[in-house]
Amino acid sequence: MITKEKISVIGIFAAAMLCLSACNNQNQEKMNADKNELTQIFPKGEKGSKDLFTGNAYNTGLVDADSVFTTAVGNVYFEPGARSNWHSHPAGQILIITDGVGYHQIEGRPVEIIKKGYVIKCPPNVRHWHGASADVGLQQLYIVPNTEKGIVNWNEAVIDKVYKSAE
Amino acid sequence: MITKEKISVIGIFAAAMLCLSACNNQNQEKMNADKNELTQIFPKGEKGSKDLFTGNAYNTGLVDADSVFTTAVGNVYFEPGARSNWHSHPAGQILIITDGVGYHQIEGRPVEIIKKGYVIKCPPNVRHWHGASADVGLQQLYIVPNTEKGIVNWNEAVIDKVYKSAE
Repeated sequence: MITKEKISVIGIFAAAMLCLSACNNQNQEKMNADKNELTQIFPKGEKGSKDLFTGNAYNTGLVDADSVFTTAVGNVYFEPGARSNWHSHPAGQILIITDGVGYHQIEGRPVEIIKKGYVIKCPPNVRHWHGASADVGLQQLYIVPNTEKGIVNWNEAVIDKVYKSAE
Repeated sequence: MITKEKISVIGIFAAAMLCLSACNNQNQEKMNADKNELTQIFPKGEKGSKDLFTGNAYNTGLVDADSVFTTAVGNVYFEPGARSNWHSHPAGQILIITDGVGYHQIEGRPVEIIKKGYVIKCPPNVRHWHGASADVGLQQLYIVPNTEKGIVNWNEAVIDKVYKSAE
């Protein structure tokens, strides 16, 4: 027999379940937000030119080259799907990935997957490109040493066929 | 008159309040954890020698100096209160703060407060020290350019009087 007491107990149990469910949903949303939003250490910066990047990439200069340090440093945030054109550096480049997932390719070699914590060196005068994966963005620091030799020489865009070979 | 229906409603309300309270506590704990734990991009690394650091500092080498890039890069995590000895770099040093709060002092100048997103340049052959604040740790990348000139010359510890002048 269903008594009023039983209804009361069922009511309390149902309310508790609803609240726990709401709580779990809230935590799940937080986790999803953490997964999709990359850690931003520096200001987002200025949007890179369509002549040099495919998709949306943002550059923040951190250290301008001078005659004492002869080093240029900056941060680039690539939105998912964004990548640089092919380019080379007369004295090479060091990339430090601070968050997200992306790709790096030295011409003639397979595409490498790059992730938070990875460090990549590209030798002088070697063509390469770098950017985000299709689904997750990329936060990367670049270091260009020995800038008295030059900083960067830009070339053509990375076509979809090459970019998609990474996926 | 207090009916069984009223008791049932009160029961459901009480259960809902308890659940919401638990949910809020869970979120508050998450926020506190976020506040106290710094973002870790690289492995914690090896504990620095007591001869070179006061307190607990951990170094992870990321790029070893070579004849092509002539650049050394690494990450140091300073626990709260930890700092380097006084030291200098024959070709200077660039610091990039990726999380936390700390101090940097060039000899003869006031102590600077350094935080997530700050970039600091210390000129060649100038004595300086850097480390965490007393309450919050510091995650910092260092870049030593032109390593053909040398990397670092270590000197004496930073005494408490000097460190505490920063607070």
